[in-house]
Amino acid sequence: MKNIIKQYKKEFDYSYTSGAAVTIELLKARPDLVEHVYIHSSFNQPEQIMILCDQNGVAYTVDDVVFRRINQKENTYIIGIFKKYPSAIATGASHVVLVNPADMGNLGTIIRTLTGFNIHDLAIVTPAADIWNPKTIRASMGSMFHLRFQHFESIYEYLDSFSSHDIYSFMLDGDVVLYSGIAPKHQPYSLIFGNEATGLDESFKNIGTSVKIPQSMLIDSLNLSVAVALGVYLFKM
Amino acid sequence: MKNIIKQYKKEFDYSYTSGAAVTIELLKARPDLVEHVYIHSSFNQPEQIMILCDQNGVAYTVDDVVFRRINQKENTYIIGIFKKYPSAIATGASHVVLVNPADMGNLGTIIRTLTGFNIHDLAIVTPAADIWNPKTIRASMGSMFHLRFQHFESIYEYLDSFSSHDIYSFMLDGDVVLYSGIAPKHQPYSLIFGNEATGLDESFKNIGTSVKIPQSMLIDSLNLSVAVALGVYLFKM
Repeated sequence: MKNIIKQYKKEFDYSYTSGAAVTIELLKARPDLVEHVYIHSSFNQPEQIMILCDQNGVAYTVDDVVFRRINQKENTYIIGIFKKYPSAIATGASHVVLVNPADMGNLGTIIRTLTGFNIHDLAIVTPAADIWNPKTIRASMGSMFHLRFQHFESIYEYLDSFSSHDIYSFMLDGDVVLYSGIAPKHQPYSLIFGNEATGLDESFKNIGTSVKIPQSMLIDSLNLSVAVALGVYLFKM
Repeated sequence: MKNIIKQYKKEFDYSYTSGAAVTIELLKARPDLVEHVYIHSSFNQPEQIMILCDQNGVAYTVDDVVFRRINQKENTYIIGIFKKYPSAIATGASHVVLVNPADMGNLGTIIRTLTGFNIHDLAIVTPAADIWNPKTIRASMGSMFHLRFQHFESIYEYLDSFSSHDIYSFMLDGDVVLYSGIAPKHQPYSLIFGNEATGLDESFKNIGTSVKIPQSMLIDSLNLSVAVALGVYLFKM
């Protein structure tokens, strides 16, 4: 592993955290997954990382070559290599469902928001942005390692698996305006959001309750991570 | 102008939109500002842009050289050059105030959200991300051209100018939990948010009402554009 690390590709069975804060999150949340940590010789406070590695039996190397090899845009001084792992969402908990999310920054920001609001289960309908990409993980600020997630090939595959959930589809022309107190009292719920460019298609009008976030005519739509945050916060109120 | 366009720098007295959608927003909202539009020869549907230019007396050129010269990361087929313009926020309207926002993507996303929720006035305490940078404008999806904005050298300069406003400072340890109905009924309000990495310092506890958005211990904070969206939506409810 140590000698073969390269710029990330989707087909790899490993990925990596890029940056000190997100690597610390990885070491704290899932030390069992970590293969190796690389520390750049220019990193000026390596002690916390080294101690965390030692405490968890994780090998680390001070080595600059690997940082050039992965060829990242941003300056990074810490890399944590970890194995990809299986994950499945929980029955009985409320979910967020993203249909074809395309942007890794949005996906990571959404994971950070869900973790902040105690939604721990994310369903993703493919094709979708790669949740394992270091950019997604970085945008999540490492909260990705606290999340349960699962991919589905269609929304119907998801709905069949969680038929006891109350379903809410977020649409520009939804029937119900998002308000506090909208959440069902006793049942788990699923909040469904569409792709950044296209939203959810008309067929979702017939899937559960369609919800709208009122917005002015001066914009086409809200940013996806903003819409998800509003949905989750109001459902949690 | 036509012959001197270069990769954007902050000190320029002009900037540009990058991309078809955002250039169309510019041409619709502020045609008076537009100096020139460049259309890449590979752009397959130039008619709408050409018609908008003709209707507004804006000159355009089909020319690929300029696209190489500004050297952008993403593929762009339309560029709209415009003059930077003076802007000032309105008295009597509610404002959002960003203290030292650092990220152009966040700044643009926040502008998009404010426009969507009919907050048309943004105060920015410097130093701050460049609101004129093409990246900010692109993240705003062009909603930037509907916004009034104004820079202040300190929060006190802002507060002195708008002493009749009800002030709300968003802090992790704020005194009041954000809820719907929190907004004052008869007065304009100002919602203040801190920098992405540091938030607002303790001195803001003594400035108006401090407001918190409850969040789990698993994250350090919410993304700034998410926090602003929640604040604005709940104040508007």
